[in-house]
Amino acid sequence: MTMDEKALAARFALAKTLTAEAGAMALDYFNRRDTLVIETKRDLQDVVSIADRNVETFLKERVAEIYADDGFLGEEFGHDEGSSGFTWVVDPIDGTAPFVNGMPTWCVSVAIVRDGQPVVGVIHVPCSDELYAAAHGFGASLNDRPLRLDPSRNLQNAMTGIGCNNYVTPERVGAIIAGLMQRGGNFIRNGSGALMLAYVAAGRLVGYYEPHMRAWDCMAGFCLVREAGGKTLAFPGSGPEFLNGHPVLAANPSCYDELLELHVSNR
Amino acid sequence: MTMDEKALAARFALAKTLTAEAGAMALDYFNRRDTLVIETKRDLQDVVSIADRNVETFLKERVAEIYADDGFLGEEFGHDEGSSGFTWVVDPIDGTAPFVNGMPTWCVSVAIVRDGQPVVGVIHVPCSDELYAAAHGFGASLNDRPLRLDPSRNLQNAMTGIGCNNYVTPERVGAIIAGLMQRGGNFIRNGSGALMLAYVAAGRLVGYYEPHMRAWDCMAGFCLVREAGGKTLAFPGSGPEFLNGHPVLAANPSCYDELLELHVSNR
Repeated sequence: MTMDEKALAARFALAKTLTAEAGAMALDYFNRRDTLVIETKRDLQDVVSIADRNVETFLKERVAEIYADDGFLGEEFGHDEGSSGFTWVVDPIDGTAPFVNGMPTWCVSVAIVRDGQPVVGVIHVPCSDELYAAAHGFGASLNDRPLRLDPSRNLQNAMTGIGCNNYVTPERVGAIIAGLMQRGGNFIRNGSGALMLAYVAAGRLVGYYEPHMRAWDCMAGFCLVREAGGKTLAFPGSGPEFLNGHPVLAANPSCYDELLELHVSNR
Repeated sequence: MTMDEKALAARFALAKTLTAEAGAMALDYFNRRDTLVIETKRDLQDVVSIADRNVETFLKERVAEIYADDGFLGEEFGHDEGSSGFTWVVDPIDGTAPFVNGMPTWCVSVAIVRDGQPVVGVIHVPCSDELYAAAHGFGASLNDRPLRLDPSRNLQNAMTGIGCNNYVTPERVGAIIAGLMQRGGNFIRNGSGALMLAYVAAGRLVGYYEPHMRAWDCMAGFCLVREAGGKTLAFPGSGPEFLNGHPVLAANPSCYDELLELHVSNR
């Protein structure tokens, strides 16, 4: 291995360990959420916010102990630029609505970006005990089983994940769903964009489209999908646009163009 | 207990046992699905069809051994009218698309209908090890923990499940999604209507709406939602319309009228 590959491999190993630990920590909050509401005299939304912040702090502190010069971008505490060229991009709990409502479809998402590209992507799903992990050139895996997209799955014989948030009007979401179905597709929305991107890498969904996501929601998923053989729409991984929202599209190559057309016709 | 209550309690106990056994049987097919595709030289759709039929046959035979005079309606093998006044209504695998695509959101759904009303509803979710169970007058539970809807959850602060199938046009689904969001709602679709109905009973979703479902998809969920304190749109549980598709609406009373209005305005 070159020095570069060694630096990446070491961070990939750390990302897997830390993401699984962060997932266990978040799961403890999830399982105790009703008790915590009573104990803290707060509401469920406060409890998930506390969990979110504490999980992000845990990840940030552990990374800083080992790689003090790495940058860090988290959903909760913003961006610390580093000097090593590596930036950790973290969503401590992706899918806070499922988390608050007691559904199992939420996850911890950890990416590492270098030269504007996600070179590591790790997603842990505590309620399913699943660890999705990928690094540039190392492939993608689910619980250590390699992932490789099946070219026979397409928009018409598989399912497509759709995401949305307050940045997207109801009419536009309705038009996207209708447009997907008019093309013979079938939609899923489980409440976590990061998890649906991991599902694309695992072949459970044939594609994922959301008109507006932030870097911490999608960077880990991008690395996973690419390493499993999928295609992704360009997303700025550095520069002034890095912290803004952008459309996200990741898919099996079999239906990438159809989903791109769906995006373009509903902008 | 009256004789009537005893007859119901005995069937409720049997339904819980059989549904959990059926779930274990279906899970075995799910976990072996890739191997089965190779062994049987068939595709995944064939494998789920085999699992569907074998799970329904298992349920039908076990019920017939103990209650030979009960009726039985299953998704796979149709309707046997009985003479006891009780009819078992079974969907052996609800959510075959998630099943085929390797997602955990599928379930076994078993209801018992009497006098046109679902008096027992049991749903087992093998991948989450969850057993939802309700009987008329006995309340609803999830893994033996009683379920009671929270009146503070509403369309705006919780999530709503939406379902659709080939009977509903893409434009109509798009309009329903847009209409829900215009009312301040937020949608989930996990691929299993029966499971989303169970989620309504458990307070994970505040409501569920699908324009066209069959009795085996919704009867167990109806019993669960009602016993947890929710409201449901009338669905024919006997007579000539029993075997046809109808709109399904089940919700926390806090948002039932809003969802009914969504249904009426998108018929």
